[in-house]
Parts: sequence; C-alpha cells; structure tokens
Amino acid sequence: MELPTTEISEESLDPQDWRALRQLGHRMLDDMFDYLQDIRQRPVWQPAPADVKSRLKKPLPLEPQPLESIYQDFLENILPYSLGNPHPRFWGWVIGNGSATGMLAEMLTAAINSNLFGGNQVGSYVEAQVIDWVKQMLGFPAGASGILVSGASMANLVCLAVARNSEAGFDLRRQGLQAAPARLVLYASRETHSCIKRAVQLLGLGDEALRLIPVNADYQIELDALRETIASDRWLGLRPFCVVGNAGTVNTGAFDDLQALAELCQQEELWFHVDGAFGSLAALSPRLRHLTDGMERADSVALDLHKWMYMPYEIACALVRDPVAHRNTFAENPNYLARAERGLASGSLWPSELGPQLSRGFRALKAWMLIRENGINKYAGLVEQNVSQAGYLAHCIDAHPALERLAPAPLNIVCFRYNPGGLEEAALNRLNQELLIRLQESGAAAPSSTTLGGRFAIRVANSNHRSRKEDFDALVEAAARTGKQVAEEMAL
Amino acid sequence: MELPTTEISEESLDPQDWRALRQLGHRMLDDMFDYLQDIRQRPVWQPAPADVKSRLKKPLPLEPQPLESIYQDFLENILPYSLGNPHPRFWGWVIGNGSATGMLAEMLTAAINSNLFGGNQVGSYVEAQVIDWVKQMLGFPAGASGILVSGASMANLVCLAVARNSEAGFDLRRQGLQAAPARLVLYASRETHSCIKRAVQLLGLGDEALRLIPVNADYQIELDALRETIASDRWLGLRPFCVVGNAGTVNTGAFDDLQALAELCQQEELWFHVDGAFGSLAALSPRLRHLTDGMERADSVALDLHKWMYMPYEIACALVRDPVAHRNTFAENPNYLARAERGLASGSLWPSELGPQLSRGFRALKAWMLIRENGINKYAGLVEQNVSQAGYLAHCIDAHPALERLAPAPLNIVCFRYNPGGLEEAALNRLNQELLIRLQESGAAAPSSTTLGGRFAIRVANSNHRSRKEDFDALVEAAARTGKQVAEEMAL
Repeated sequence: MELPTTEISEESLDPQDWRALRQLGHRMLDDMFDYLQDIRQRPVWQPAPADVKSRLKKPLPLEPQPLESIYQDFLENILPYSLGNPHPRFWGWVIGNGSATGMLAEMLTAAINSNLFGGNQVGSYVEAQVIDWVKQMLGFPAGASGILVSGASMANLVCLAVARNSEAGFDLRRQGLQAAPARLVLYASRETHSCIKRAVQLLGLGDEALRLIPVNADYQIELDALRETIASDRWLGLRPFCVVGNAGTVNTGAFDDLQALAELCQQEELWFHVDGAFGSLAALSPRLRHLTDGMERADSVALDLHKWMYMPYEIACALVRDPVAHRNTFAENPNYLARAERGLASGSLWPSELGPQLSRGFRALKAWMLIRENGINKYAGLVEQNVSQAGYLAHCIDAHPALERLAPAPLNIVCFRYNPGGLEEAALNRLNQELLIRLQESGAAAPSSTTLGGRFAIRVANSNHRSRKEDFDALVEAAARTGKQVAEEMAL
Repeated sequence: MELPTTEISEESLDPQDWRALRQLGHRMLDDMFDYLQDIRQRPVWQPAPADVKSRLKKPLPLEPQPLESIYQDFLENILPYSLGNPHPRFWGWVIGNGSATGMLAEMLTAAINSNLFGGNQVGSYVEAQVIDWVKQMLGFPAGASGILVSGASMANLVCLAVARNSEAGFDLRRQGLQAAPARLVLYASRETHSCIKRAVQLLGLGDEALRLIPVNADYQIELDALRETIASDRWLGLRPFCVVGNAGTVNTGAFDDLQALAELCQQEELWFHVDGAFGSLAALSPRLRHLTDGMERADSVALDLHKWMYMPYEIACALVRDPVAHRNTFAENPNYLARAERGLASGSLWPSELGPQLSRGFRALKAWMLIRENGINKYAGLVEQNVSQAGYLAHCIDAHPALERLAPAPLNIVCFRYNPGGLEEAALNRLNQELLIRLQESGAAAPSSTTLGGRFAIRVANSNHRSRKEDFDALVEAAARTGKQVAEEMAL
C-alpha cells in the first residue's frame, strides 16, 4: 500500500449543510412544477444561441462549485434550449412527454438508488409485477418471461438475440455464428424501424441477413413477397429463422397483418417477433385492439413505456414467450455473483439473467407507481384520444385546399405537406422543408419529417398526453399560413 | 377511422389539483432527505417478509389510485427492503451510493425529460462536455470519441462491437460474421468480468472466441501465456483481433500490466480494449494513477460513473480512440431521422450514431452537475480514501488471529475469511457462508462473496463515499464475533 492506512480522511458526498441543500432542493422542485404547469405558455422549442453553447464549454472542474450557481446555469442555459417534448405541440419523431408524477417517481428512484441486478431485494418483485401487468396489457401469456430495458432498440435487440440463439440449430452462444452450417436470415418490411437493422448488425448477422420485404399501399408487409422470399432463401440453402412484424411503423403508424404473420411463422417454423415500440399499446383500447390481433401469438414483443405510456425516459420492455429460451441467452453465474440460500445474495429473481445489463437501475418503480396512479383505463383513453386527434388532423388536412395528406393515418401519425397545386415535386420538397423549419423555429409546433415515395412529408406523431384539439387547429392554421408565405418568398 | 374525430376527450396526465401534487412532492422530497441524512441509523439491509412480497402482488390496476396511498405503499413496503447501497456499511459486489444532489439532478432530468438521440438541443452539448471531461480524467486523447450508456456492460459491448467491426478485415456490418474467412478470437484474463463474455456472445462471436488466459499470484494476466496463445491461434489459422485488459478486476481489484498489453497489442496489431468499470478511476489520484499506466494507449475504454463516481444509476461511458471507427459501427440515417440545416433536426451532434440506443435519456445532466458540484479533486480524494480504507481493513484482518486475507488488496477490494485454524477447507467454506449471511441479516454490514482457488471469501468492495474508519472496525469486530459463534454452533 502506498496510501496511508492509519490517518484516513473522512470526507463524503453528503452536504456540509443539509438544511441549505434541502432548501435548494425544494426550490428546484417548485421551479420544475412551475415549468410543467405553465409549459403551454412557452415556445415548443428554440435553438440555443451560439453564446449559450460556448458558455457550456468549461475546463475540467477541479474544485467544487456552488450548487446554486450550477442550478442557475441549468435554468438559464439548458432548460430553455432542451428538446421541448413535454410541450403540448411537440409531435416530432415518436417521443413521450413524461409527467409531474413521473418526475417524483424518478426522484424516489434516485434516492434509494437500487441496483436491480438481482439478489434479495423487493425491487425485483416490483419489476416482476410490472412485467406481469405488461403481459396482461398486451394479452401475452402469463407464463412468458420479460425484462425492463432502456428503450425499444434494446428490447428489440434482446428479443432478436433470443431468436437467433434459439433458432440457430446449434450452440451459437458457445460456438459463434462462424460455426453456422447455413447463413441465418430474417425478414421484415421496408418500413421497419432502423433499430432492427442495427440489432442485426450488432448480433453479427450483417445487413445482408435482413431481408427487407416490400409493402402495400397501406404500408403493410406484402405477404406474398414474404412467402416467396422465404422459399427462395431456403432453396438457396440459407436458414430463415425469424420474421419481424410491425405493430405501428415509425413512418405512418401502419400495422402489418400480425395474424397472417403468426400463421405464416407457425407454418414455416420461424420465430415471430413483433416490434411494438409504441403501436403495441393500441391493445389497451377495446376500440383499437383489433389492430394488434395476432401479436399475442408472437414469440417475442418489444415495446416502449416512455412513448405511448408517457413515462420519463428510459423505460421499455422485452417479452419472450419461452422463458427458458430467454434465460438461456443471457444467464451467467460467475463466482462473484454466487447465489445463497439466505441473505442479500438469495432471492429467486435475477433480472440480470435476462438481458445484457448487470448493473440496472430501478426503472420498474416509476412504472409501478404511474400505472397504479393513472390506471389502465386512463392510458387506454389517452391512446384513443391521440388516435382521434390524429384522425381529426387528417380530416382538417383533407378539407384544406392547400394541404395534402401523403399517407394513410391508421393510428397516431399523420404525414402531410403544403401543396397549393401546380408545383413540381422538387419545388414542393424544398417548400415543405423550409415550412417545417419555420414551424419549429417560430416555437409554434414541433413535428418532424420523413420521405414517402420521394416526397418530403411533415410528420406529426401524436404520443402527447397534453395535446388538445386547439393545438391541431393551430398547427393547420400555421402550416397553411407559413406555407403560403414560403411559397411567395421562394417565388414559386 | 373508427374513433370519433369531432368530439374528442381532452384528458391529460397533468394533475387535477396541482397544489395537492406539489404538496405531496415536497413531502416526498423531505422524506428522501431524511432517509439519506439518517441512513447511518438504519440497518444496512433487511429481507422483505413474505407478507410484504405478497402485498406487492396486485391485479392490473384499471382505475386510478390515490398517489398518496401508492407513496405510502412505497414507504412501507419498498423503501425498507431495498438493496441498501446508500448505506455506509454496504460493500457488496461493486455498487455506488448515489447522493442527495444526484437525486436532485435526476428530478430535473425527469422534469425536462429530454430524449438525447440527437437533433438541435443543448443536451447534446452537455453530453459532449461530459465526455470531454471523462477523456481528461483518464488521460485519453482529446480527439477520441465517446458516448454515455447505461453501465459498463453496455460500454464494453459498444467498444467490443467497434473492435470487431474495425478489425474483421471485411465488411462485417454488411456481410455478417458468417462471411468471415477466419474465426475471430480475442483475449482476456480469467479474472475478467462476465460482461465481456456476455458481449462476446451477443456479438455472435461465441464463447469459444474468448481465450481466457491464466493469471499470476497478483491476479494479473500472464503475459507469456497470452503471447503464446496468440501465436498458436495464428498458427491454427484463426484471426486474433483484440486484447481486453483489466483496470481493476471484480474479484480482487487487480490491474493487468496495461503498459505491457499496449506494447503487445501494438506489436501484434490488435485492438487494445480496457475494461475500467471502476478501477480506471484510480487515474484521478496522483498517488494511484500509476496503476492505470498504459490505459491512455488503449483503443477503447469502458467505465462506470455510477460506481466510483457515486452517481445515481444508470451512467457509464464508452471511449473509442478512433472516432471514425466508432461512428462506422453504429451510424444509420433513415428517412424519419433526416438531418436539416436549421430547426429541430439540425445540430452536428447525434449521440445515437455512437451506440445501440436511439431514444436516450439525458443522463449527461447529472454528470455535468455533480462533477462541477464536487470537483475532480474531491473525487480523487474519495477514491484515495476508499483505497486507504481497504488498506486499513486488510491491515486489521492481517493483525487478527482468527481472520485471514485470501488475496492481495491492491485497490478497494478486500477478500478474507474467518479462520480460527485447524479446520478443513470444506468446513471453512460452510462456516464463512453462514458468517456472511449473518452479517447481512443482522443489518450490521453488507459485503458480498466470491470464491478464490476454491476458498469461499467474504468480499468487501469499497466504492462507498459514506464509509468511515469506524465502519470497518465494526465489520472486523462483527466478523470475528459472529465467526466464533457460528463455529461453536456448527460444533467445528
């Protein structure tokens, strides 16, 4: 030892003055309540000015700085220039709002700061309870296995890892993909989210293993094309192992025919995985549930709780029908994680055996609190509300002479553009790009964009519990007015 | 549309009564301050009684429940039976405490609830700043790339994915491992953490690709054995691509000779990765930094900030020397993530291009606040304090006639057992298993265990900013007293 062992400093990260920190904490909490309560009065988003960005650039802090001034920095330089997704007119990508109660749940989580790797702690039971609820919400079998993870990207990765290992036909976990007698291939529609591609890459399968199948006019996977591709791959000596179905695509909210995919996977003896990042939660509503028909037959489902359940980031869930396959993909038992019959290292629930994380935060706590606080019927109502609002927006666009819808809107996503008529596609694309940016820069609304068949689309994804009818009216008005203005400026 | 689009409900998750929620929030905050301030008075840990576990089991909540009663449930049934890691005598596995300020930072994070996937938001600059600081903390080159992730398991996975793709010698991302002309293999010592094995499995390389090299008496990788294995693998036609060095092993806190490994990797043209989950932070201390010599030459480093920086779960960092290799492993650019010159989808920093997550929480905020609040010198002092305390504990054990140290303690981990002399190894193992459980069940202290050369060891991993000398005195006293008692009961 080179360090002293007799005279040891006894510092800690506890405050010198608990009273002062407590006071500041209460002020922060009040400020955050104010922020959330008055958010409708703020611009949705504003870009950080250059001087704010440069003010954030600081040398490595060696000495302590007063928390008060750090917090002031947060209030002045971070809060106003954050993404803006708690706002009622934020509809970019697919992003949830969070909530005031979600904030409180995260505060409690950080206070007890549990590491949910396993062991004998009550958090494991809370997580198991949440997973049981998720299974019931989705109509998934009670015997299925599940784990809470950071987001749908991770949930899809977990599910596809289990699919890969279970369906490989040899001990892939031990021998690796290089020992495979035939190349493993899987299938998904062209509208499938890029996280599936990324998972396939990470799993070592390579992009070429992912067969992207065309879609029909409703952006659903073409079943005939899928069947033909599987047959031709088998003929070529490849080993098909999985089909990924979409419960709500990211571009347009389309649902693949999950019932047909379940049937096909049964016939073809393939793993049936459903990416239900947000769309799977249509199952909560008796009026929308039919869209998810067949999802309950999947071998695995990935879904987010931070999108259409509006929970604070990060929380998602991977469900796997076969608990043994799930465990066999991830469980390890090294010496330093040995189990005991009693004590801290006992307990029958070790969530770290079901996913890539060993240290894991207690993300289950917010789900456990929020699902109870709101009740499933409330979430079902909000999902329906968001879908109704999207329908209302689609209707307003269809009724407007200068606005044009660019895709069906079966769920909560509406793609449209400003189109006064008589313009070339290229000009329309330029016009709408500028229009979208102005909507954002004005702070009026924050949709994002996509491209559908070469057409630039303003894309409104409504997973926002704060949006009201007036917000969509404001969007339509602003889009039409700004579109006209941009067209004039561009001298189109 | 089957849902109404004219008369739409206008519910939200905002409270009916903001005042009441605000009041409850302040009560929660006070309770959590009390919990942290008085934690020394609590038992470290206590098992949840059966009736608590069964009380947690509830049917899917359909209707709203009062938040007050949910919170009461948390206070009565969760808080007392949580893992206990904020406590000054928690030394199980390698787990940090969190802090009161960490709790506040998480509250702010959840309030603004930013999704740090990219786009034009100030959070991306905050994250970039934190990563720059981490590079400086570790003496890593300023031009390196980095990303914040959930934990070291994920950070190691990210780094090994980059290593695999960069060193494969073909377009692995596109073609997959099955197209590899030779089997890829990598190297690490037998003391390496199981997350490396798990990453290797997930990446499709298979356990067999991970060559586990023996260690010397100080639990460091045997360099000669490593060299020989690489040579023999090359002779066999395999393709060595990476060596994993340990900066602080999980069993004993050992450091591989990183300087020698860097040299070897340079000669052999292999990717040099360092798993520095907690041990890399020895670099903060001028007195301990020498242990990490050579780490600054690594191609990639994985480290946790929720362990030896005591931040709330989850936060870790992956650093990659070659930013192009890093980006090339993960970047995608689908239509719905298109970039713009201005507006919300502009911005040059897209962290989601550097890791497996698309949606990502704003975990950078807590790091940005806490590093500034405490200053690096404070962290360096606490790291030294923890190492000094471990040295003190080792000294007390060595001085005690009935306690025996089972491994060198070069850092913050001490492995020992009760050994009064004259007992068989099997009896000693049984005795110490029971002794450890009683330490935990009594609420006196919470070490965990490992097995070293067949011997069951009580393992104290000190990444605890609240521990004081008196806590280690109490541990030694309790271990000796309980050991004697167990030995008598077992009639040994």
